[in-house]
Amino acid sequence: MSSSDLHLPVPGHPIAAIATPVGVGALAIVRISGAGVLDLADRVFRKAHGSEKLADAAGYTAHFGRLYDGEEMVDEVIALVFRAPRSFTAEEMVEFTCHGGPVVVGRVLRLMLDKGCRLAEPGEFTRRAFLNGRIDLLQAEAIGEMIHARTESAYRTAISQMKGDLSAQLGALREQLIRSRALIELELDFSEEDVEFQSRDELTAQVETLRIEVNRLIDSYQHGRLVSEGVATVIAGKPNAGKSTLLNTLLGQERAIVSHMPGTTRDYIEECFIHDKTMFRLTDTAGLREAGEEIEHEGIRRSRMKMAEADLILYLLDLGTERLDDELTEIRELKAVHPEAKFLTVANKLDRADNSGDLIRAITDGTGTEVIGISALNGDGIAKLKQHMGELTKGLDKLHEASVLVTSLRHYEALRNASDALQNALELIEHQSETELIAFELRAALDYVGEITGKVVNEEVLNTIFDKFCIGK
Amino acid sequence: MSSSDLHLPVPGHPIAAIATPVGVGALAIVRISGAGVLDLADRVFRKAHGSEKLADAAGYTAHFGRLYDGEEMVDEVIALVFRAPRSFTAEEMVEFTCHGGPVVVGRVLRLMLDKGCRLAEPGEFTRRAFLNGRIDLLQAEAIGEMIHARTESAYRTAISQMKGDLSAQLGALREQLIRSRALIELELDFSEEDVEFQSRDELTAQVETLRIEVNRLIDSYQHGRLVSEGVATVIAGKPNAGKSTLLNTLLGQERAIVSHMPGTTRDYIEECFIHDKTMFRLTDTAGLREAGEEIEHEGIRRSRMKMAEADLILYLLDLGTERLDDELTEIRELKAVHPEAKFLTVANKLDRADNSGDLIRAITDGTGTEVIGISALNGDGIAKLKQHMGELTKGLDKLHEASVLVTSLRHYEALRNASDALQNALELIEHQSETELIAFELRAALDYVGEITGKVVNEEVLNTIFDKFCIGK
Repeated sequence: MSSSDLHLPVPGHPIAAIATPVGVGALAIVRISGAGVLDLADRVFRKAHGSEKLADAAGYTAHFGRLYDGEEMVDEVIALVFRAPRSFTAEEMVEFTCHGGPVVVGRVLRLMLDKGCRLAEPGEFTRRAFLNGRIDLLQAEAIGEMIHARTESAYRTAISQMKGDLSAQLGALREQLIRSRALIELELDFSEEDVEFQSRDELTAQVETLRIEVNRLIDSYQHGRLVSEGVATVIAGKPNAGKSTLLNTLLGQERAIVSHMPGTTRDYIEECFIHDKTMFRLTDTAGLREAGEEIEHEGIRRSRMKMAEADLILYLLDLGTERLDDELTEIRELKAVHPEAKFLTVANKLDRADNSGDLIRAITDGTGTEVIGISALNGDGIAKLKQHMGELTKGLDKLHEASVLVTSLRHYEALRNASDALQNALELIEHQSETELIAFELRAALDYVGEITGKVVNEEVLNTIFDKFCIGK
Repeated sequence: MSSSDLHLPVPGHPIAAIATPVGVGALAIVRISGAGVLDLADRVFRKAHGSEKLADAAGYTAHFGRLYDGEEMVDEVIALVFRAPRSFTAEEMVEFTCHGGPVVVGRVLRLMLDKGCRLAEPGEFTRRAFLNGRIDLLQAEAIGEMIHARTESAYRTAISQMKGDLSAQLGALREQLIRSRALIELELDFSEEDVEFQSRDELTAQVETLRIEVNRLIDSYQHGRLVSEGVATVIAGKPNAGKSTLLNTLLGQERAIVSHMPGTTRDYIEECFIHDKTMFRLTDTAGLREAGEEIEHEGIRRSRMKMAEADLILYLLDLGTERLDDELTEIRELKAVHPEAKFLTVANKLDRADNSGDLIRAITDGTGTEVIGISALNGDGIAKLKQHMGELTKGLDKLHEASVLVTSLRHYEALRNASDALQNALELIEHQSETELIAFELRAALDYVGEITGKVVNEEVLNTIFDKFCIGK
């Protein structure tokens, strides 16, 4: 289905939402969009000076006044008027800047709902912007990425996507695909005459070039995901090895409850820290021992789940432990079970072990892992540990500067599908299969690439995308 | 010192801050205020359509465009222009509505700081609004109250204060005080002639009326504080009585980690719930036993501290416990130590005790407290418990509808001082003391009342008030 088939009746039903983060702040924005929202706003807004109606005001003008529910004053606000189509949604809009407390913002929103708006669905403002042709799907998603960005790299990737850098690359890809497909479909039209508009060798070269281009984008996803989501890092180890202390040291602030009793960390705690422009999402796990207690048990189940998703596993052991046999076995097992994750062994309590050098060599030999000695308590070795963690994602920034990154699983999957279709096409050409089959695969590749920018969309894809948005966007 | 002595050079140094709550949202506002901020904005803002400068734009107009740091695009924004004195601070201001993620908002703020703004101090925008005569001190504080309001009642009290209801009452008080004082000071001027401009009886009547009026406001503080801060409620009881489960049941969601091991709640957890328009701030405390473990110990110390500040103590005991002697002793002790707090005994695990009726009667007799039987696990009796908790604050709403509430400790203390001064004046009149002394006390009362609205202020009071604000307000 093309996007034009999906056009909502423009303007849509009036919708309202809180657009700013929930919490305590000086100001907040409640936005309304859709048919007749200026008249709706005039029913609750009284301008402080003059009696001009918002419905009569020019677009891009602001008006100071008060919101009233009947005779009850709700708040002092600034009303910012947008006239269609010069607004984010391309509809009539008003943005009320009100005071920023949760109750007052909720009260302003309720007023809008009482007067005829319905609560916007997640991403509905952006969805209308897309459906009304204001932005493409990639740009819509870039807005979401930008809002959720937690590092400079993620933010810069989103800005680049919002500016349309990835859209431009995919646009170029699509044009080449359309050209190849057009030629081959022309052949189909003249199939009875057995004309070949381009040699099969030429076509192979073209499709191969496209496949390489698509694969380059696919390859950028491994890094793009780390930029966008951060490096999923799990701290594993026996109870009492100092996992919570290490977590706190890495985070540079008190977060988890630290105690000397084995099994204190009952749940996993996820916190982020940024080292050298890379974000690490750290998960502290409940002690990895077979505990009879039910909470420990649940914690262990969750920590195993976390470990399966890890980009990096830090295995923490205590150099003061009498025998490290169990630990070495566990390290070897974890490495074997999670071959896709990077692995660092972190030897804690460097300060307490006299023979730490020998011990670290023995652990290195016994596990085949890189071992870094630290003291989570006094911070020794932490800088070195961070440096080693950083090397995992080395070159990430350079890569980013150089080219466009794919950061979204949706784009990655669409590109994978496109690449598969192109691969199929190449094999069909090689086996001198029928032109129809080749044309079919090229059409499929074109559709997959088109899905990314929204040239080709279906309701389901849109729902998946916009449901992830927060309400108010 | 009068407020006019404190006038900052107007306009002040350019300041910048994030005005919306920190977090993830569609939009955020970064505001700048002070000398030359329109020119400053023009150095980083490029309008999307047309080339109009913000410095040339009319006040209360909005402009769509992009922020640039050199050639690096920072975000797409709407710039809202305010020209002095028609702005919140009465200075030149720009409010940039940018995308709402923490990184992008931080980036926009950094851009403003790089270009010549300094980070605003907490409350500095509102402070400038006060110093430039845009609002009085009560209204400034009302903005803070409104932002932090967590119940409708707190919000409505703040709105009333922002509209100037309390200001008006205090203004009337001040006028009466000024009249009484003027007359008595006139006497001083003519003291050699032994003139009495009003009879001492008349004066007594006037001052007594004022004192009653002031005391009425003082009395409203007990309720005003509950409206503004909520009812501080502590759940006390032995380990394993079910405190965390009760907390979660009252909150209606999973919050604390609940387990069967004594001493699981290591720290206090504070959460709010609202029942019948009243907010209860619930604190779950670490088990009240003498524990050797250090974490328990710290928890117990903190929970004792919390209990000392409580408006309401819920003592939870387990009906399934073999002997409740310890619990009854503890209840009697807690009641004796905290006579100012309301007290409810909550008998948990109603579902497990066959003889619960007898037990509850025995507990009532043994402690002299009201006992409510519940099952925290299946929710039995919770509605009744909430109802009893609500009765503590019964009539709060009616009181609020009827009159102005004092909600701030600062106002309360100033009114207490004013009341004391009026009381002193009355005693001096009664004892036929010298006119100077009476005049001195009346002047003191006037100054104390003036402190509230900011007619009389000193730098220290201002710092105390505005330091409590968040940055960006």
